[in-house]
Amino acid sequence: MRYLWPDYVYTPRGWQRDLLVALDEEGRIAGLQPRFAADGAVFPLPEGAVVEPLPGKALLPGFVNVHSHVFQRALRGLAQRPVSGHDTFWSWREAMYAEAQRLDPERLYTLARATYREMLAAGYTTVGEFHYVHHQPDGRPYPSPNLMAEALLQAARDAGIRLVILLAAYARNDFGQPALREQRRFCDPSVAAYLGRVEALRALGAAVGLAPHSVRAVPEDWLRAIAAYSRRERLPLHIHADEQPAEIESCLAACGCRPLELLARCEVLGPLTTVVHATHADQRELALLASSRTCVCLCPTTEGDLGDGIPPYRDFLAQGIPLAIGSDSNTRLDPFEELRWAEYTARLRYGERRVLVAGAAASPGPYLLACGCEHGAAALGVEGGRLEPGRLADLVAIDLEHPMLQGWTTENLLDSLFFGASAEVVRAVWVAGKQVYVR
Amino acid sequence: MRYLWPDYVYTPRGWQRDLLVALDEEGRIAGLQPRFAADGAVFPLPEGAVVEPLPGKALLPGFVNVHSHVFQRALRGLAQRPVSGHDTFWSWREAMYAEAQRLDPERLYTLARATYREMLAAGYTTVGEFHYVHHQPDGRPYPSPNLMAEALLQAARDAGIRLVILLAAYARNDFGQPALREQRRFCDPSVAAYLGRVEALRALGAAVGLAPHSVRAVPEDWLRAIAAYSRRERLPLHIHADEQPAEIESCLAACGCRPLELLARCEVLGPLTTVVHATHADQRELALLASSRTCVCLCPTTEGDLGDGIPPYRDFLAQGIPLAIGSDSNTRLDPFEELRWAEYTARLRYGERRVLVAGAAASPGPYLLACGCEHGAAALGVEGGRLEPGRLADLVAIDLEHPMLQGWTTENLLDSLFFGASAEVVRAVWVAGKQVYVR
Repeated sequence: MRYLWPDYVYTPRGWQRDLLVALDEEGRIAGLQPRFAADGAVFPLPEGAVVEPLPGKALLPGFVNVHSHVFQRALRGLAQRPVSGHDTFWSWREAMYAEAQRLDPERLYTLARATYREMLAAGYTTVGEFHYVHHQPDGRPYPSPNLMAEALLQAARDAGIRLVILLAAYARNDFGQPALREQRRFCDPSVAAYLGRVEALRALGAAVGLAPHSVRAVPEDWLRAIAAYSRRERLPLHIHADEQPAEIESCLAACGCRPLELLARCEVLGPLTTVVHATHADQRELALLASSRTCVCLCPTTEGDLGDGIPPYRDFLAQGIPLAIGSDSNTRLDPFEELRWAEYTARLRYGERRVLVAGAAASPGPYLLACGCEHGAAALGVEGGRLEPGRLADLVAIDLEHPMLQGWTTENLLDSLFFGASAEVVRAVWVAGKQVYVR
Repeated sequence: MRYLWPDYVYTPRGWQRDLLVALDEEGRIAGLQPRFAADGAVFPLPEGAVVEPLPGKALLPGFVNVHSHVFQRALRGLAQRPVSGHDTFWSWREAMYAEAQRLDPERLYTLARATYREMLAAGYTTVGEFHYVHHQPDGRPYPSPNLMAEALLQAARDAGIRLVILLAAYARNDFGQPALREQRRFCDPSVAAYLGRVEALRALGAAVGLAPHSVRAVPEDWLRAIAAYSRRERLPLHIHADEQPAEIESCLAACGCRPLELLARCEVLGPLTTVVHATHADQRELALLASSRTCVCLCPTTEGDLGDGIPPYRDFLAQGIPLAIGSDSNTRLDPFEELRWAEYTARLRYGERRVLVAGAAASPGPYLLACGCEHGAAALGVEGGRLEPGRLADLVAIDLEHPMLQGWTTENLLDSLFFGASAEVVRAVWVAGKQVYVR
């Protein structure tokens, strides 16, 4: 049995000093037990026990990156100029389509592997890859229809990160508008064809989820079929919604209702479902999210980069809607910065401090950690996100001696991390109990 | 003569490959010259020339931290809970006052030295220290009246950072309200006493500026006298204004005008003056800033932490108001993050991309660099902020091989830095031509 022995471990009861984290052969946490007895004597361990001390380190659950389009990493720093004279989300999309057209399995593999290594270095142990660049550039399937997805699976294996492939379904450009040239390689000819590829991926043993792109890209009958499949197979379902006003206007014009209302009508919302962004959700849509126990995935750095808006954080909290985080366009990879700016943009929106908290007297630290780890794990159907026996041993060691953390206390360490630090404090990362990264 | 030879140098003409940066004995840039002739031969150098190659590095001007209250570093992570049941800027202020009461010269020195080291590691080479904890806790001056300021000067010398002490003037709690108990150690009995301490500091050879705290804390006759001294002695003048609605309401009630209008009336605004925050400046106040050529210092991470609001970035740009940055409460020390979130919060406010740009076709990178370096140097009266002959050799070397920067091009490197990176890419820092930090 292997044991990790950091100075501190973050358990559901808070920071604990000198706890041993036992790791089993299946990549799970076998147990948490004290290193020392009350009298200071070392507790005896079983024969063959190996203890790895981690002096000056604090152990956290690994962060869960619920929403990523890994190929967009190639745009970092290169999509900050106007395209065709305008500067909105939609002009950024043109640069992104150009990059999508350039991809082939090898290029995708190389880019994904490097970016998944960057994610690990930042403290993300799991990524939900919202993958939509499926086919050849002219739209014809590859001889092996999941070749691009398999490149991602291989990249994740070689990088060492835990991957959930959220296979995107895409049918058209908008309500009543066929797919554009640049979208051909995203699209399947039918929902049956799409679900066939989902089944083929699952048959490879991959962790898979369903990802109808958005209400603009996917017709109602597809949405219903995909949602039914999600419920029957108990697989996560992820969908973009309410990120930009134009999407909402389009949906209202075509269907007479807003995107989340349409999703409720198609029985897409539910405890297996995550809505990405929900930036412009109105009161009725918020109530639908809450009553259906749907999760919302926030992408603060990408939402800032695209100027989407500051979502209704206060309403999310008040209505008990679980929140998770994602790096989305991968312009930044740092869960500490994502969570910090979720809270900061919330403060800027409401002109008050302490929006994302789990109780009247609490600081944001513990709630931000839940968003970064536990809620994310649930949104991807992964048994991680908490340091508890039975959970996956996906772990992050933080350097308590880093100058950024100088002045930390056990009472406030999470706040020091989220408000004072960057991913620079990450020292080592384990996935399924195996150390996959060390600084 | 010493020469630095990085792969790239950022000059006012953009990135240049294989340029030598010559450093003279006075801590200034003596010249910039090519390493190689057109035929590839190495240009001969004078006798005794020492060349330090910096392979894989890009050299930038050092970032200028225009606004810092260094002692507030002690609050990092510790001021995220409610105080007296409420959660606003004003409840944070209570935690800050408690910390201010605890300070003595030794504690201040220790905290300042460590925090100035953190600033250097983040790429800041100059700091404008807005210093107001002057006297003993009961308000009596120390036997040596500038003892606390001298602790800061020593801390900066020992850390290696360039320091401009912005000596704060403080007289009262609000219009018609005497100083609170906790403010006693901030206050001088008269503006003459305050200016006497300014003169004494200058006599020590320190770089000094004037810093009337705010319109609430400083009466009009003081403001006029301090502004006159600033103009006569050509020293920078910094003042907080328009950070929170309550300040504006108080000023309107007492004076019938808004803070920047009052400052204009007292002849405080001008090319030597920097207004810190200006978050809630209205159209008339913006016009006053623009016509007087006053600079504005933004503090995005602290403004986020305190929920101040998103300032009118678009108006700043449209009216040609120069912008600089400051770490303020020192909850975060990272010029890349400050500049990124200045632009991102601007995008969130306006729902558009590319707000902080210097031209119709430009990306934000060059303008953000100017905010981070050149405008900041001007705001502090320091001849730095640009890599040009004659300017101070305050420099930062960036690691071009860092995974965060993978994919960079010379055309877009600044965008890759500001949108994709953190201070983790800083490899070495020079102040006055001397290497003061290496990672």
